Amino acid sequence: MVLEVAILNLRPGQGPAFEAAFGGAQEILAASPGYQRHELRHCLEDDHRYLLLVWWDDLESHTEGFRGSPDYERWRELLHHFYDPFPTVEHYVVCE
Amino acid sequence: MVLEVAILNLRPGQGPAFEAAFGGAQEILAASPGYQRHELRHCLEDDHRYLLLVWWDDLESHTEGFRGSPDYERWRELLHHFYDPFPTVEHYVVCE
Repeated sequence: MVLEVAILNLRPGQGPAFEAAFGGAQEILAASPGYQRHELRHCLEDDHRYLLLVWWDDLESHTEGFRGSPDYERWRELLHHFYDPFPTVEHYVVCE
Repeated sequence: MVLEVAILNLRPGQGPAFEAAFGGAQEILAASPGYQRHELRHCLEDDHRYLLLVWWDDLESHTEGFRGSPDYERWRELLHHFYDPFPTVEHYVVCE
């Protein structure tokens, strides 16, 4: 199991609109093969910062399956315009 | 409930020593009032990067309780010398 970690910095004042858009977009994420669950979290130290955590079966479920799916274009349209700068996404596995 | 998020960049070659030191230090964390659970994760994209997630009852359990405790000095001694640069720690709450 792999945890996707994306720290999302939004353009100022876009928090409510982003949260509303994410509420619709999350169905796209949840329908992707290899998806397990996700959490969208809001930063206590910075009102324009969010954290998206997505638990996947494996790395490729995200990087190839989700990003390569026809529905990913819709995900991009709904969400990517909120970000500034565009986020770096990383993946983490539990240490043994 | 508040999630502490710390992205930990280590000095080169220190991964195994850090993981061993963390194995001992985690008892200090787990004994702190308001602690719920934690995960130490390793980054797939960068071998020198780790992610520490700690679930706390509330922000103050971490920022005042844990950091203000006598045992925190021992935590610092065990772990802080591995980090370069010193990590920024943030806290996130689930969006409603």
